[in-house]
Amino acid sequence: MQRLSYPSFRSVLAENEIVRVAGANHALGGLLAEEAGFQAVWSSSLEVSASRGLPDASILSMTEYLEAAANIQKALRIPVVADCDTGYGGKLNIAHMVHEFEAAGITAICVEDKLFPKMNSFVAGAQTLLGEQEFAARIAVAKQAQSTGEMYVIARTEALISGLTVDVALERCRIYADSGADAVLVHSKAKSREQIASFLQGWDFRVPVVIVPTTYPDWHIDEIKQAGVSVVIYANQGLRATVRALRDTYRSVYENGDSMAVEDSIASVQDVFRLQSLETWQKLDV
Amino acid sequence: MQRLSYPSFRSVLAENEIVRVAGANHALGGLLAEEAGFQAVWSSSLEVSASRGLPDASILSMTEYLEAAANIQKALRIPVVADCDTGYGGKLNIAHMVHEFEAAGITAICVEDKLFPKMNSFVAGAQTLLGEQEFAARIAVAKQAQSTGEMYVIARTEALISGLTVDVALERCRIYADSGADAVLVHSKAKSREQIASFLQGWDFRVPVVIVPTTYPDWHIDEIKQAGVSVVIYANQGLRATVRALRDTYRSVYENGDSMAVEDSIASVQDVFRLQSLETWQKLDV
Amino acid sequence: MQRLSYPSFRSVLAENEIVRVAGANHALGGLLAEEAGFQAVWSSSLEVSASRGLPDASILSMTEYLEAAANIQKALRIPVVADCDTGYGGKLNIAHMVHEFEAAGITAICVEDKLFPKMNSFVAGAQTLLGEQEFAARIAVAKQAQSTGEMYVIARTEALISGLTVDVALERCRIYADSGADAVLVHSKAKSREQIASFLQGWDFRVPVVIVPTTYPDWHIDEIKQAGVSVVIYANQGLRATVRALRDTYRSVYENGDSMAVEDSIASVQDVFRLQSLETWQKLDV
Amino acid sequence: MQRLSYPSFRSVLAENEIVRVAGANHALGGLLAEEAGFQAVWSSSLEVSASRGLPDASILSMTEYLEAAANIQKALRIPVVADCDTGYGGKLNIAHMVHEFEAAGITAICVEDKLFPKMNSFVAGAQTLLGEQEFAARIAVAKQAQSTGEMYVIARTEALISGLTVDVALERCRIYADSGADAVLVHSKAKSREQIASFLQGWDFRVPVVIVPTTYPDWHIDEIKQAGVSVVIYANQGLRATVRALRDTYRSVYENGDSMAVEDSIASVQDVFRLQSLETWQKLDV
Repeated sequence: MQRLSYPSFRSVLAENEIVRVAGANHALGGLLAEEAGFQAVWSSSLEVSASRGLPDASILSMTEYLEAAANIQKALRIPVVADCDTGYGGKLNIAHMVHEFEAAGITAICVEDKLFPKMNSFVAGAQTLLGEQEFAARIAVAKQAQSTGEMYVIARTEALISGLTVDVALERCRIYADSGADAVLVHSKAKSREQIASFLQGWDFRVPVVIVPTTYPDWHIDEIKQAGVSVVIYANQGLRATVRALRDTYRSVYENGDSMAVEDSIASVQDVFRLQSLETWQKLDV
Repeated sequence: MQRLSYPSFRSVLAENEIVRVAGANHALGGLLAEEAGFQAVWSSSLEVSASRGLPDASILSMTEYLEAAANIQKALRIPVVADCDTGYGGKLNIAHMVHEFEAAGITAICVEDKLFPKMNSFVAGAQTLLGEQEFAARIAVAKQAQSTGEMYVIARTEALISGLTVDVALERCRIYADSGADAVLVHSKAKSREQIASFLQGWDFRVPVVIVPTTYPDWHIDEIKQAGVSVVIYANQGLRATVRALRDTYRSVYENGDSMAVEDSIASVQDVFRLQSLETWQKLDV
Repeated sequence: MQRLSYPSFRSVLAENEIVRVAGANHALGGLLAEEAGFQAVWSSSLEVSASRGLPDASILSMTEYLEAAANIQKALRIPVVADCDTGYGGKLNIAHMVHEFEAAGITAICVEDKLFPKMNSFVAGAQTLLGEQEFAARIAVAKQAQSTGEMYVIARTEALISGLTVDVALERCRIYADSGADAVLVHSKAKSREQIASFLQGWDFRVPVVIVPTTYPDWHIDEIKQAGVSVVIYANQGLRATVRALRDTYRSVYENGDSMAVEDSIASVQDVFRLQSLETWQKLDV
Repeated sequence: MQRLSYPSFRSVLAENEIVRVAGANHALGGLLAEEAGFQAVWSSSLEVSASRGLPDASILSMTEYLEAAANIQKALRIPVVADCDTGYGGKLNIAHMVHEFEAAGITAICVEDKLFPKMNSFVAGAQTLLGEQEFAARIAVAKQAQSTGEMYVIARTEALISGLTVDVALERCRIYADSGADAVLVHSKAKSREQIASFLQGWDFRVPVVIVPTTYPDWHIDEIKQAGVSVVIYANQGLRATVRALRDTYRSVYENGDSMAVEDSIASVQDVFRLQSLETWQKLDV
């Protein structure tokens, strides 16, 4: 229950050869990811926007994504990595974003090199990149805006997502690292790991690499580690499991006319109480 | 996608012999409840507080519960019934609550006759009731505070929850109805339907009755209707299904070292896009 | 005290030959503008951002501007006209903005034809305009996104602010009106009224005209009316008066070492209570 | 512009014999108080509720007061002391309040020994106190809930406000200090300083004393210091000056039909830009 008792993402990374991160859109998801063993939680834009019934297309505001990230962080003992899309505008917005996320206790953020407003990376259609120098300048602004050495800034390239080559992705990542990025995230929607593996073979590891194996789900953590990756984000499996579970449950209750059929396969109310740390809270009220 | 295209709860009730309501804590849950056929969504305090990792004990503020309810409502074509706990304080708080929920487009609210701060009804231990005249006065304040005839105020008695008799519950509900409540909700944590059935036999139906069959999940909707109930709230099955699904998914990904084992049992990213109404939104950008 | 008891901006405009609007950044300002006789309140981006100590440069998010506008509106009996800057992004953002402002009870919004992120119009330096067809398309999206006929969309051209001619401003406004704008706002930072007067002489009044006489403060309301203007926004005088009053007061208290010198020139606590409608609220608690 | 660059209230108190604190309801007020020389800012409940047009009667929620306090703090180089009323409920609410204010970077809070919902101390009518042991227990909960040694908890007694004697106020303050309060605030609505002076003569200074000289405005800071006070809060003069300034300005503009009469007595737009740190921000965008 005690709040503010979490390490920074930077310190978690220092203590783990590889950090596994699970996507979530609320604190409950974060708590269950923590329970499962994950070392950090990704406050995913796709998850948060989907939880509002809106596209992952820069429609929700920075305020709303920040609130989601902060509400997750306050409940956890592991750090949140905030998915900050493209940084919500230009350089001033990036600086303000860093101020606000840092003020809310977030210790790691990720920004990507697409235009604002962005569209989710898995949506068909063109994905326009920001010029690499302009994005590098934004990374520099982000690093300059932070108050303490703790804030960890991940620069994400959407080069592969937009159809460019691994060489372009490498060149962009080198520029971002040299501009101050603490790590680079290279995203791919290829159906297999080759694209990312090729990136890793070409990378000089001047900063650590983050990956998001949504479309190549068969890449085992041991192999990923061996390939040199430092952070793996399982970005949206929780959301997708939630959709399936809610759909099945609501349908069962509605179509059967009672909730008997689902009772055995859903958590108990007592289990929910435990996740709410109810007993710890009740001890305050004696 | 088009917002604000939902009927009031009052009108839904007028058009349906019995209204089935599913609990949710975010718009995505609401959308899936709507998809399953439910006629309304319950913005459950238990669900919303659990989604924040906090007990259902008046710890979150009215602002936070309102935001959850409003965010659900804006995404739906069916109305939200807002779980407003005890009304967040005294008479002034009740009046303000009605102003705020009405301003946010909520057309039905539910308040219960316990003291503020409350504790969730299924938690073991004493549940202290507010005096019935004091609560009736609060209901009157709520009705007086509404701007239009649309707002639907449900008075919930926790008499059975606090260990009192069906006669006390009946007496309290009569007083609340006479004080202006549009409906009464009689809550029970008995393991079977008898307590509620007994209430219904004693009720003169001066206003409709709402029930929440969490602990008596085998009561079929046809029998419930026959017993005279107008509104049934399946309050937290969605949350409990989410807990189970997230726990299983996170564990599988973490323990297996990849997400292959869950891929077939979770929704696709394309399915998420559909729930986000992505295509409708994309048509704006031509 | 009763909330939601305000007419739409559209209906106020129908009932008044000319509508005078005062800028505010909080409900208290709105209440004092209403007390003075204004027919509407402008939730000014300059005022709201300044109240946060941040530049008027698209740094605050739509969520924050919306919250400010909604909080003002809920306290008033006159409508709010929301300053929505450039619409907070692209077409999807404009549509979402209309959904959100409408859901919050705002009946009039104003969007301007500059790029996002914008810079305040009175700041020295380049002000880049959006192409007029692109902006017209956004106006069309805004009109299509509204749920009811009440929402009033004002299209603001920054043509004069960006150094273009009155002819360009006229052409842009014609295009915006034909694209569905309910009114046009022509902004100028010229030190006298001539630029705007020239615009009005060239305007065919296919829709009403809104002006903001910040830099030409000597234009009397009777003359403005005679020139054909329908809405006048006194956008930031309240903020500027607040700065002066707070600076003088804080300095006096700090430098004098007590608050005696300001006591006679500031409102009484009782006066504050009256603006809070305290007596009306207290009547609820009997 | 750089955020998060403020000392804790505790450290400010350590470095100053007496700390002068000015009330504010937004960051702009805080910036002007800082400019005048004040060492801290009071995020006043009266000011914040009045800015929303609502009574200072626990109507706004903790979330809203926290947001106001956090938004002020983020803009300043001096610490905020948050007026937290009665703690927003029972013991669990107090603990949650400390978690939330600490997470938002607030380093000092003040809670008072009245019942929730409270009524502003200057409103005529009964002011019911919480039992002193119950309140002392809440102070203990607050202290136990804090994550770091920085958080400074001020226990405020309303004994004199509720018509009790100086001896009762002293006894309550001793109990609160022994329960862990970092300081005590003794509030009075007497028209002169005698009541507070008498309190100070009886106080053993086991913890520092805070006063709020609203109704005895002639007490000079040098005399206050000599009497042993450590912190003086000028709680609402800024709000009252704002009311006067806005009323005069809006009236002048409306009645005169133009804004000429106020132009010379209000701040310039350039002055507003300076308070927004516009130049510093613009340097980011080169």
